[in-house]
Amino acid sequence: MSNFKLTVSYDGTDFSGWQTQPAHRTVQETLETAIGTLTHETIRVNASGRTDSGVHAVGQVVNFHSETRIPATSMVRAINAHLSGDVVVTACAQVHDTFDANRDAIRKLYRYVICDGATLNPFMRRYAHHCRHSLDAMSMRRAALPLIGEHDFHSFETDWPNRATSVRTILHLSVNRVGEYIWIDIEADGFLYNMVRAIAGTLINVGRGFWPESQVEAILRAEDRRQAGPTAPPEGLFLMRVT
Amino acid sequence: MSNFKLTVSYDGTDFSGWQTQPAHRTVQETLETAIGTLTHETIRVNASGRTDSGVHAVGQVVNFHSETRIPATSMVRAINAHLSGDVVVTACAQVHDTFDANRDAIRKLYRYVICDGATLNPFMRRYAHHCRHSLDAMSMRRAALPLIGEHDFHSFETDWPNRATSVRTILHLSVNRVGEYIWIDIEADGFLYNMVRAIAGTLINVGRGFWPESQVEAILRAEDRRQAGPTAPPEGLFLMRVT
Repeated sequence: MSNFKLTVSYDGTDFSGWQTQPAHRTVQETLETAIGTLTHETIRVNASGRTDSGVHAVGQVVNFHSETRIPATSMVRAINAHLSGDVVVTACAQVHDTFDANRDAIRKLYRYVICDGATLNPFMRRYAHHCRHSLDAMSMRRAALPLIGEHDFHSFETDWPNRATSVRTILHLSVNRVGEYIWIDIEADGFLYNMVRAIAGTLINVGRGFWPESQVEAILRAEDRRQAGPTAPPEGLFLMRVT
Repeated sequence: MSNFKLTVSYDGTDFSGWQTQPAHRTVQETLETAIGTLTHETIRVNASGRTDSGVHAVGQVVNFHSETRIPATSMVRAINAHLSGDVVVTACAQVHDTFDANRDAIRKLYRYVICDGATLNPFMRRYAHHCRHSLDAMSMRRAALPLIGEHDFHSFETDWPNRATSVRTILHLSVNRVGEYIWIDIEADGFLYNMVRAIAGTLINVGRGFWPESQVEAILRAEDRRQAGPTAPPEGLFLMRVT
């Protein structure tokens, strides 16, 4: 039995998220079917974490166990031949039996992409949130600083599914503008449900001048989801990298 | 009666091309419906040229006549409010009564985008043709030089619909690579049916080493479509600019 680690990229638009559900097209089920067809086995793919409906991944990491003799070097091309293009395997390595993509993920980097131009380029409409207000990216960056470090992020968590603790550590958070696009990069040791999208919705309220910069720290301290901004839509969110 | 000129951008993936056809979603019909809803008129939109099913536009130019009192400065936002995002108006100007987007188009620039990496990024699969052979972009560029200027491009024309003449003038043709992407830019005073895609299919055959560079000039001289390469798929083609 071999344990394979894959790096996977997908356009989440036409998937009902990562996790297999009856009568829905999901990334997990699509990958399991493709690898199962290739290896003539029943395959169970284990991801670093689930992504929601409409959320994209540039570098999702997964692992699966198989009896196949196909070498890791041939695996990328072989699996992609059974996929339709909106999910693609970009790397494969054979790893130690004990490697578990979920348990061994020590940090993840998410990117949230916003366009605040008058019109959204039609080629970006699946890959960015169109905000109809002009945003001040420098103000968003300053406002976000208090989120860096170890905190209880309960204010930025959708309650379901419940977790033992809402304490997480944000290692890196930046807000950058290029032309009409703003992206928010957040790297943390783990994320709560809808956490990046709640932070993005909150920073948008600051960037458009609706809230002062100091509001973000107040929201963090409140540990109350109702204080934060709305959950920003999924099309702007990318799982960039898993370490 | 006012005459409005619009610049329009669209993702052609989910359209059956430009021209209205019964029971198909087309760009023309989508725009006419949106503007008609806005102005309470029956609107007829006239484009610089038709684009085929799956072909994109960054800067298509169209015009339409209307009795509306809506000023040109408000038109972009007003029309886009009636569109769903895969076709977007990016500019509007009121023009002289006699302006005709089709008749007055003196040149157009098309871009054909190819990816020759081992895997195609899922976010680009609607916007590039994935070629499974490595391509030599410098060789493609050299091979394309004889196409520049006034020639009979019958070898690069799909016969239907027939035209009076196949003589056109290519003002500019370049082949450039950035990373795994190659783009072919062609600016001409007019284009024959499938001309850019036939040139792209021909240059791909050169770039992968299947044909010598000199073959392109021989094909041009032959004035025979069967000599040229295949018509490359629509997803790589963009109408960039109309002058």
